Amino acid sequence: MPSEPKFGAGLWHFASYVDRYAVDGYGPAITTLDAIARAGEVGELSVVDLNYPFTPGVGLSEVKDALAAAGLAAIGITPEIYLRRFRRGAFTNPDPAVRAAALDLMHEAAGVVRELGADYVKIWPGQDGWDYPFQVNHRELWALAVNGMRELAGAHPDLRFAIEYKPREPRVHMTWDSAARSLLGVQQIGLDNVGVLLDFGHSLYGGESPADAAQLLIDHGRLFGMDVNDNLRGWDDDLVVGTVHLTEIFEFFYTLRINDWEGVWQLDQFPFREDSVEAARLSIRFLKAVHRGLDLLDIPALREAQHRQDALGAQRLVQDALLSSMAVDR
Amino acid sequence: MPSEPKFGAGLWHFASYVDRYAVDGYGPAITTLDAIARAGEVGELSVVDLNYPFTPGVGLSEVKDALAAAGLAAIGITPEIYLRRFRRGAFTNPDPAVRAAALDLMHEAAGVVRELGADYVKIWPGQDGWDYPFQVNHRELWALAVNGMRELAGAHPDLRFAIEYKPREPRVHMTWDSAARSLLGVQQIGLDNVGVLLDFGHSLYGGESPADAAQLLIDHGRLFGMDVNDNLRGWDDDLVVGTVHLTEIFEFFYTLRINDWEGVWQLDQFPFREDSVEAARLSIRFLKAVHRGLDLLDIPALREAQHRQDALGAQRLVQDALLSSMAVDR
Amino acid sequence: MPSEPKFGAGLWHFASYVDRYAVDGYGPAITTLDAIARAGEVGELSVVDLNYPFTPGVGLSEVKDALAAAGLAAIGITPEIYLRRFRRGAFTNPDPAVRAAALDLMHEAAGVVRELGADYVKIWPGQDGWDYPFQVNHRELWALAVNGMRELAGAHPDLRFAIEYKPREPRVHMTWDSAARSLLGVQQIGLDNVGVLLDFGHSLYGGESPADAAQLLIDHGRLFGMDVNDNLRGWDDDLVVGTVHLTEIFEFFYTLRINDWEGVWQLDQFPFREDSVEAARLSIRFLKAVHRGLDLLDIPALREAQHRQDALGAQRLVQDALLSSMAVDR
Amino acid sequence: MPSEPKFGAGLWHFASYVDRYAVDGYGPAITTLDAIARAGEVGELSVVDLNYPFTPGVGLSEVKDALAAAGLAAIGITPEIYLRRFRRGAFTNPDPAVRAAALDLMHEAAGVVRELGADYVKIWPGQDGWDYPFQVNHRELWALAVNGMRELAGAHPDLRFAIEYKPREPRVHMTWDSAARSLLGVQQIGLDNVGVLLDFGHSLYGGESPADAAQLLIDHGRLFGMDVNDNLRGWDDDLVVGTVHLTEIFEFFYTLRINDWEGVWQLDQFPFREDSVEAARLSIRFLKAVHRGLDLLDIPALREAQHRQDALGAQRLVQDALLSSMAVDR
Repeated sequence: MPSEPKFGAGLWHFASYVDRYAVDGYGPAITTLDAIARAGEVGELSVVDLNYPFTPGVGLSEVKDALAAAGLAAIGITPEIYLRRFRRGAFTNPDPAVRAAALDLMHEAAGVVRELGADYVKIWPGQDGWDYPFQVNHRELWALAVNGMRELAGAHPDLRFAIEYKPREPRVHMTWDSAARSLLGVQQIGLDNVGVLLDFGHSLYGGESPADAAQLLIDHGRLFGMDVNDNLRGWDDDLVVGTVHLTEIFEFFYTLRINDWEGVWQLDQFPFREDSVEAARLSIRFLKAVHRGLDLLDIPALREAQHRQDALGAQRLVQDALLSSMAVDR
Repeated sequence: MPSEPKFGAGLWHFASYVDRYAVDGYGPAITTLDAIARAGEVGELSVVDLNYPFTPGVGLSEVKDALAAAGLAAIGITPEIYLRRFRRGAFTNPDPAVRAAALDLMHEAAGVVRELGADYVKIWPGQDGWDYPFQVNHRELWALAVNGMRELAGAHPDLRFAIEYKPREPRVHMTWDSAARSLLGVQQIGLDNVGVLLDFGHSLYGGESPADAAQLLIDHGRLFGMDVNDNLRGWDDDLVVGTVHLTEIFEFFYTLRINDWEGVWQLDQFPFREDSVEAARLSIRFLKAVHRGLDLLDIPALREAQHRQDALGAQRLVQDALLSSMAVDR
Repeated sequence: MPSEPKFGAGLWHFASYVDRYAVDGYGPAITTLDAIARAGEVGELSVVDLNYPFTPGVGLSEVKDALAAAGLAAIGITPEIYLRRFRRGAFTNPDPAVRAAALDLMHEAAGVVRELGADYVKIWPGQDGWDYPFQVNHRELWALAVNGMRELAGAHPDLRFAIEYKPREPRVHMTWDSAARSLLGVQQIGLDNVGVLLDFGHSLYGGESPADAAQLLIDHGRLFGMDVNDNLRGWDDDLVVGTVHLTEIFEFFYTLRINDWEGVWQLDQFPFREDSVEAARLSIRFLKAVHRGLDLLDIPALREAQHRQDALGAQRLVQDALLSSMAVDR
Repeated sequence: MPSEPKFGAGLWHFASYVDRYAVDGYGPAITTLDAIARAGEVGELSVVDLNYPFTPGVGLSEVKDALAAAGLAAIGITPEIYLRRFRRGAFTNPDPAVRAAALDLMHEAAGVVRELGADYVKIWPGQDGWDYPFQVNHRELWALAVNGMRELAGAHPDLRFAIEYKPREPRVHMTWDSAARSLLGVQQIGLDNVGVLLDFGHSLYGGESPADAAQLLIDHGRLFGMDVNDNLRGWDDDLVVGTVHLTEIFEFFYTLRINDWEGVWQLDQFPFREDSVEAARLSIRFLKAVHRGLDLLDIPALREAQHRQDALGAQRLVQDALLSSMAVDR
């Protein structure tokens, strides 16, 4: 039986949020250092993925100290290529000067990855895409996206770059929108150090089966990381994992287990109105139940049912395990 | 603790299906009597809702005998006001002669309800609605829907009529499309014997919270019946209940319990490619787990959490119960 | 032929935006007075709906002067009952003190409506609703929503209150979520001065036909106002009107015309990355084409086609008019 | 200016339909020969895509004669690998004997393509996919899909095979679900004679931009064919083209034009309740307006606007052309 996974979180899980309505924010601003301290409070996290730049005035050494004090390491660095300057795109911005500025920021983030010994630069080009029919030349846009990633990753052959795809938001349609499209792009890039971070929620509301997407990425050797959360399939609600879609998250982790994928189980949640430490704790409590549930699952029997494509047989086994997962070993 | 509920099913659960692709059907045709026998095989069902007319050549007395032999009673009769003749609508058909024919069929169905001692005439006006922008005069269409229902129900004050709303399919937009719209219509009808049958899946893919819809209908005294199944929120997939949305079905039954709603727990599933008897058995196995899960649930604590709108606290209690529900008393 | 309509806009159309990604905003902050000036620059607007409170330091007399200077009048006041303080709800906040604070703000807004001679208080309870299954007691929540509105509107019998429904965002599910649910609530409130503001985009992505929703609200005498914009049916993208759904916006305005509904044609758009004045101008250019298109439309023939529910016949007439609407009288 | 395109249709456009509700069909059965005659009546069609097998009793020579009499040629043959026998899949059926039977039928269809001098075998594996979480082993399923296509196409190097992807229906999730996934599969197949047929509606309700999908397929040299229709973005409604999404269909054809893609403009519509000949005529009337609209469009100016990603500028040009397209040359 596999040992318990390592847990992690995007550091933004512990931030305060703002949206287009509560323009004064859902709570007071929280610095990078405060967020690290909160992540430490959870008591179950091993790693965090940090947005970069840090809060103005906070230096790298302070971040290192704060991580050490909280018992955390960095798994990744996420350059904020979706702030105002990049509102019309980072890689795909129509202005070459802004594209260059985005690359500069990502090069900087690469340096921070080295400094912190993190696993990857997380690339989430949130403002790359379009909003209106007829707004862009689709060939041109895709070429900018692919070529920019190649230039970036090619400059850092010692590091790994994980693209996080998402169907939409903040653009009405985003450039890296699905697992399959991301793999096509990765093939066009042609570098070994570019892979994909699969966000369970993005996959779910994009109409994928997250389990199928994970398998596809694994089969191409490109599943560099993953995030979990939940939503109502229509939007990236970033709810606490395990609050809505129990069966599909269980299938997702089942897929990781049978493939011996042993990365970190990371949280990417936005607890707008909840206590962020409590939200993380509830999540990890649930993820541990998932882990126990997989131990309870009769995997050989499930494999046989799947080979027959026997939905009822498979579900019976799954319900036995999943719906008993909180009753054991707590 | 409430005793175990009575279980039921739409008789079509045991039929064979056809769609626009497998035009030769997903299996051989099944008569009304065969379907009743299959329902009996499940071993857990107390009642069925029967389509009307029965298979040509099958009479009411045969149906009575078959029900008795299978240990079943009729809970409702569903007149097939969605066959070819009614393809452009039953209540809202532009042709008055077709509207009259639809009413005739429903009057007949009312007679069968009396004969079988069933609870209600189930009205599912599947072909009432529109497909294209600009196709209909919306005022006119709604008036036909409401007035037709009033005429029908007014003619049978001794019987109850349960309208089953659905957002779409087979029309692109259906007239009775949501719980709220149905209640508005029921108010305009102004009769006590018209209520609503809530199909969990219709509510879910229509963007409602089925729990909220159930509460609303209960608060208006109009929840006459219910059906369960599952789907991916984008369409009426009529999957086996408990295979996708565990939390929301649990909340739905929680809502029924705290309101002491004591009707039948009915299946409305379309096991296109599965064995229909096995599908029903797996469903009921799951529904019994739901019932046990509600027994395990700390309802007073949940009520307090809900009063504070404390999502995390509520979810913790729910996960404790739901994710232990298969581990007990099996 | 009806004369050209009056045009209006939510003042937020001319603001700068922030979201959970571009936390430094899509542009520099814009004050109430600046936004009024921009609205004036459009050159086609007669009225605006103003958020309240105004930018700190801006008084009512300054607003009046700015409106006068811009050639604008106030059509409505929208109290900001969705800022941080109200993040867990306004009418439905679990804390009675916050509910009281929300009501105070709305009473103040009512006073501003009187001062400015506006038509209505616009009520958009953006934070009222829930995010998670099991988070709330649905009966309790709905009672808070309905009773709060009754208390508010009952205190100002001289004013009109227009509830703007919306399916979701910023809550995962909002309390006033559809036209039908809003009408149910309005009936429970039982006051003549409470009605509905129909936002075309909210209706569209909520799965309604906006034309049908408008007809329903008109038939209940409750269509107090309306807003237009566009989206991809999955979210409230608040795109510029006329950029995606030409036929359905045309059907919406057709419905208003045949009912002689003569209110203002208002814009509710969020041009995150576009020039807001240009966005408004393009919108109004399109809306004038819609108006001309309705003049071109053979309405008697369309009525006949609709009476037959003849989709093809209706569409032929509609295409003739709509797809000629830019070719005439420009 | 490009000359007017050739128009075509799936022969099923002229069939009668059945679904899971109107099990007696939306009209009387129509034979292959009757459908060809109806297609001829339209008066604007040059080619049809024929389902295979033909109606029992109808031979190839009769089909040839009927096509000649109707003034039609065959563009493709669509083997019916989605009937009852293949209800659990064609390429991905768990039963090897059924997979072999599906291949046999497709080999036969390939022979018919040769006999009729058609352009391609259209492969629509409608029953390939899954319905339930945990039903299948995703690696196994995808391998069956890809290897089966390779075997089929490898056996007929003189013919072209066009895979028509679709997100869902009749399976809850289909194997070939998007343009990007299809291209990944085509790359794994590794044969030049396998490409993609893009159905506008499938792309639209799958959340793609059909224009972007077309560009992607063209850039990979794999756009072998296309179909048009319309829907409400949530399902494959197969409505008459031009009745809902005018702007996006215009962008789709714009993309074909700027890439000098010169294939047939084909209809794939299901006029359940409409006259199929009239439906086709209205469609082609609209498509001719699209063609004229593209002539009216200031393409150099649009290219410049797109290069700036100027949504408003692009839309202004588009509205000028599209909303004048019925006013000219009729």
